[in-house]
Amino acid sequence: MDNAVSLLREKCPLVHCMTNYVTVNDVANAILAIGGSPIMADDIDEAGEIASVSSALVINIGTLNARTIESMVAAGKSANEHSVPVIFDPVGAGASALRCRTVDRLLSVVRFSIIRGNLSEMSYIAGFESRTKGVDSGLTDKDTDPVAVASIVADRFNTVAAITGAVDTIVDSTRVARIHAGCREMGMITGTGCMLTGITGAFRGAVSDGFEAAVAAILSMGIAGEMGYAEAKDKGTGSLRVAIIDALSRMDDSTLLGHGGVEYASR
Amino acid sequence: MDNAVSLLREKCPLVHCMTNYVTVNDVANAILAIGGSPIMADDIDEAGEIASVSSALVINIGTLNARTIESMVAAGKSANEHSVPVIFDPVGAGASALRCRTVDRLLSVVRFSIIRGNLSEMSYIAGFESRTKGVDSGLTDKDTDPVAVASIVADRFNTVAAITGAVDTIVDSTRVARIHAGCREMGMITGTGCMLTGITGAFRGAVSDGFEAAVAAILSMGIAGEMGYAEAKDKGTGSLRVAIIDALSRMDDSTLLGHGGVEYASR
Amino acid sequence: MDNAVSLLREKCPLVHCMTNYVTVNDVANAILAIGGSPIMADDIDEAGEIASVSSALVINIGTLNARTIESMVAAGKSANEHSVPVIFDPVGAGASALRCRTVDRLLSVVRFSIIRGNLSEMSYIAGFESRTKGVDSGLTDKDTDPVAVASIVADRFNTVAAITGAVDTIVDSTRVARIHAGCREMGMITGTGCMLTGITGAFRGAVSDGFEAAVAAILSMGIAGEMGYAEAKDKGTGSLRVAIIDALSRMDDSTLLGHGGVEYASR
Repeated sequence: MDNAVSLLREKCPLVHCMTNYVTVNDVANAILAIGGSPIMADDIDEAGEIASVSSALVINIGTLNARTIESMVAAGKSANEHSVPVIFDPVGAGASALRCRTVDRLLSVVRFSIIRGNLSEMSYIAGFESRTKGVDSGLTDKDTDPVAVASIVADRFNTVAAITGAVDTIVDSTRVARIHAGCREMGMITGTGCMLTGITGAFRGAVSDGFEAAVAAILSMGIAGEMGYAEAKDKGTGSLRVAIIDALSRMDDSTLLGHGGVEYASR
Repeated sequence: MDNAVSLLREKCPLVHCMTNYVTVNDVANAILAIGGSPIMADDIDEAGEIASVSSALVINIGTLNARTIESMVAAGKSANEHSVPVIFDPVGAGASALRCRTVDRLLSVVRFSIIRGNLSEMSYIAGFESRTKGVDSGLTDKDTDPVAVASIVADRFNTVAAITGAVDTIVDSTRVARIHAGCREMGMITGTGCMLTGITGAFRGAVSDGFEAAVAAILSMGIAGEMGYAEAKDKGTGSLRVAIIDALSRMDDSTLLGHGGVEYASR
Repeated sequence: MDNAVSLLREKCPLVHCMTNYVTVNDVANAILAIGGSPIMADDIDEAGEIASVSSALVINIGTLNARTIESMVAAGKSANEHSVPVIFDPVGAGASALRCRTVDRLLSVVRFSIIRGNLSEMSYIAGFESRTKGVDSGLTDKDTDPVAVASIVADRFNTVAAITGAVDTIVDSTRVARIHAGCREMGMITGTGCMLTGITGAFRGAVSDGFEAAVAAILSMGIAGEMGYAEAKDKGTGSLRVAIIDALSRMDDSTLLGHGGVEYASR
């Protein structure tokens, strides 16, 4: 997909975000910067309606609560009914019983086009079925191999599974991509993961192939991190946050194509 | 009103904001930048009490929910009882049944000093009465004329109606102002509308004429957008957001008077 | 404590924040900038669990509501049971009946390691017991002396009491520190107090002496304010916010030691 950014900017997809209140402003500004149109709506009386008319729905459980969990379920079901792709960011999966239950529930009632998390979160999801049955999942040392973990998630949930880290891994039923982009310093600000999930929704709203949408989004975010760090490294992390959004707003297809940090393989 | 900014900075009005969690930080910083003092409080057990001691109350339904709607109603009624002016930002009016119901309800139980929205939101409000009666409102092609739409809103709700867009329109019972300020790029960040409504509350808390307060606020925001864009245009939208708040903090009366972008007329 | 910053950066304490939605992003970025790891979780079904595994818990009632108050109580009790230090920021104590009741309740059921507020908030807490008994607290002109007010709070609640203002005052059972750092312009942005409370949690998660943790945090924030203002003073308050977080991310022990703005005394 050589024109994902220009497609996105041309279509300006409406991205319905049910996300956490810590980084919601960054998510909205990242989606706008890359060319989408964000809308945040989490009341149960409108979440399904808004999802039904959106180009993509993003569900991020960073600051979940009893009220918003029900809204997420309703929005996810509505999106599925209306063929609106749903992107899932299982923030903190495994970190509390509530998060485990909520992840399990969402996975059981909503079909996701793309699931993106870190290795720990995705490992939780990969082991979900076995764990809840009280038997060992058969996961071995391969659990720490992102390609293996992502493959289990992709197959079990018939989805694109993306694990972000020092190297990013994207897997669908037949393809694998490994992305070498971004920098360690992105972890010094809150929200780079949430922003990434947000722009993944924007790309998915413009590009029907979830694998290509995820690759374009993760590469864009990584490049924005590199550009941002180059700009802000002598200033500090407040400037880094600003510079990353600046870089997203200047992103274009030739920058993505010229980066050279993506390796593709078959499964 | 040649001294609105200096009056605001001298009085430092307390502005109670019931606003959305996406842009609430920007709203608070914009109010501080222009010289006001923001307070956010949305629990039903204190919303009315806080509103009663404020200089202005801002109600913005960007991320409304069942809990906060009741608090908005309570705060609005309390403000009316205590002669505290109320500013309304009907974010997304018309976009969902919940938003329509909530806008209708707020308009029926709270008197607003100023209502500010985009043309779509204000058109919804202009057609409210007829629509709920199931009859045509008699709105014709003039519906797309901001002066006509704002005039209907101003007359029906005995308020100052402000429609912001490429050109901004402010109407009260006898006056019309058209403001040529700001730039298209302000739409590339989230929150410029919410920040504007926030500083409208700050100006209204210092200036008793709602029409003049709205004009000063909209002109200030437009100029801040122009200054911010001049500063940030080679950097990107993260910098634009910072530069707009910077510009608000440096705003003064002579900058407003020198801009020349306001046309006044009688109705 | 000559190595508080390096200790913090080495330990990278997990700081569970139950804080307001206005400044939560700044709090998270400030904690990251100084070297901690923030986690925000406010649902009653996980707040206690998350608190139990954290290095510190921060409770800030800036935008309290009926739901989150119960979660704060549960998290505070859990933290106490698991010997996790709890930091309290009683935002707006005295400003509404709900805030007064909530402050009283939290103080009665949770033991706080550090309580930090402005003079007005801390004066409310100092007079709490007498007020609720309907009798005069015996507070006299000394009420406006921060050392006197902080001493009452420190003794009554067996805590470290910190009152921030033009000069900052930190008191425990035997010691007093007065800090001359920061600048008036920090009040031109929202969140400097909340960020300070957040990094106080980060320091307290790395330094077992609450008095020393509070001194290091308050001095760090004051220096960051001075550095930020030096950087941003010709630009405006949007830049000031960015520059303060930048400065926190560059903070080190030698900067703290070299500032010279701390006076110590015995009580």
